[in-house]
Amino acid sequence: MSDWKKLSSRIVYENAWMKVREDQVIQPGGKSGIYGVVLRKLGVGILAVNEKGQIFVQRDYKYPIGKFLLNIPAGGVEWGDEVLNSAKRELKEEGGLTAQKWTKLGSFYTSPGFTDEFATLYLAEKITEGAMEHEETETLVDHQWMEPKELYRMLDAGELEDPYILVALALARQYLNI
Amino acid sequence: MSDWKKLSSRIVYENAWMKVREDQVIQPGGKSGIYGVVLRKLGVGILAVNEKGQIFVQRDYKYPIGKFLLNIPAGGVEWGDEVLNSAKRELKEEGGLTAQKWTKLGSFYTSPGFTDEFATLYLAEKITEGAMEHEETETLVDHQWMEPKELYRMLDAGELEDPYILVALALARQYLNI
Repeated sequence: MSDWKKLSSRIVYENAWMKVREDQVIQPGGKSGIYGVVLRKLGVGILAVNEKGQIFVQRDYKYPIGKFLLNIPAGGVEWGDEVLNSAKRELKEEGGLTAQKWTKLGSFYTSPGFTDEFATLYLAEKITEGAMEHEETETLVDHQWMEPKELYRMLDAGELEDPYILVALALARQYLNI
Repeated sequence: MSDWKKLSSRIVYENAWMKVREDQVIQPGGKSGIYGVVLRKLGVGILAVNEKGQIFVQRDYKYPIGKFLLNIPAGGVEWGDEVLNSAKRELKEEGGLTAQKWTKLGSFYTSPGFTDEFATLYLAEKITEGAMEHEETETLVDHQWMEPKELYRMLDAGELEDPYILVALALARQYLNI
């Protein structure tokens, strides 16, 4: 049980990718105040592994931080779409890949102190490579198949900074031959 | 190099914990549009390990998702404060703990598609237990020292959903006896 009380709630900002809701609340200690919550679509990320045991990665530009990050294919789940279906679409769009075997690795909240964003991660195996279908807003610079050993070395060295690749590697370790 | 162009920028919402900035942009494909970015303080999380090799965890309520999550001590870095200093303060406030040995595990962006939030994780060892000093807004329900093996079993089973504990366990694996 929570000791928070919500007195009222209003949307203070909205665009196609997020809503910001500001609640009037009574905090657990009894003080009144506000709580701002960013509402987001569900997220999905895919760790694709080929028959050699290599992992598909890409380096894409993240506008909010002005940096390229090494990542796995990931994106938002469209309203009304199923999460696994979105995963299949993202893998096709970003990697030109289709997979015959899908295993759910787990789910996580990206930053539950201020947003409801919830991401689900899949392991995709039995891969077929095809043509890519990028969205116009995506700036994909390069992609490659990497050895798991090298990715876990980078993880241990603190060289990976994207939450999808970090959590996916944490969850997939039990399935990979490393 | 990015192919995004920022034409203008304005703050559309602000409270004590976040600012929302809306940019007018030209997308890589040449289309004009907007990009909403949530600006946040730096974050910090602490994986505290006692002399028995056990890890300090707590189950706290996350208002934005209306759920309790198993987590490690974590919080925001106050403006002007050093990250490590904030880590020491959080560990004292949330766990009543002080540590003599601090090791930086790494840093990650919590959701770089819409926020600049950047979190740093530390391993804290040579622990002394003391009294806790909760903030009024925190609803701490229970805390305990857990065996690493049990936490990694929960991780493998997809039972952990907080990004701080997930990424910290991924990064700390090389330091723990599991």
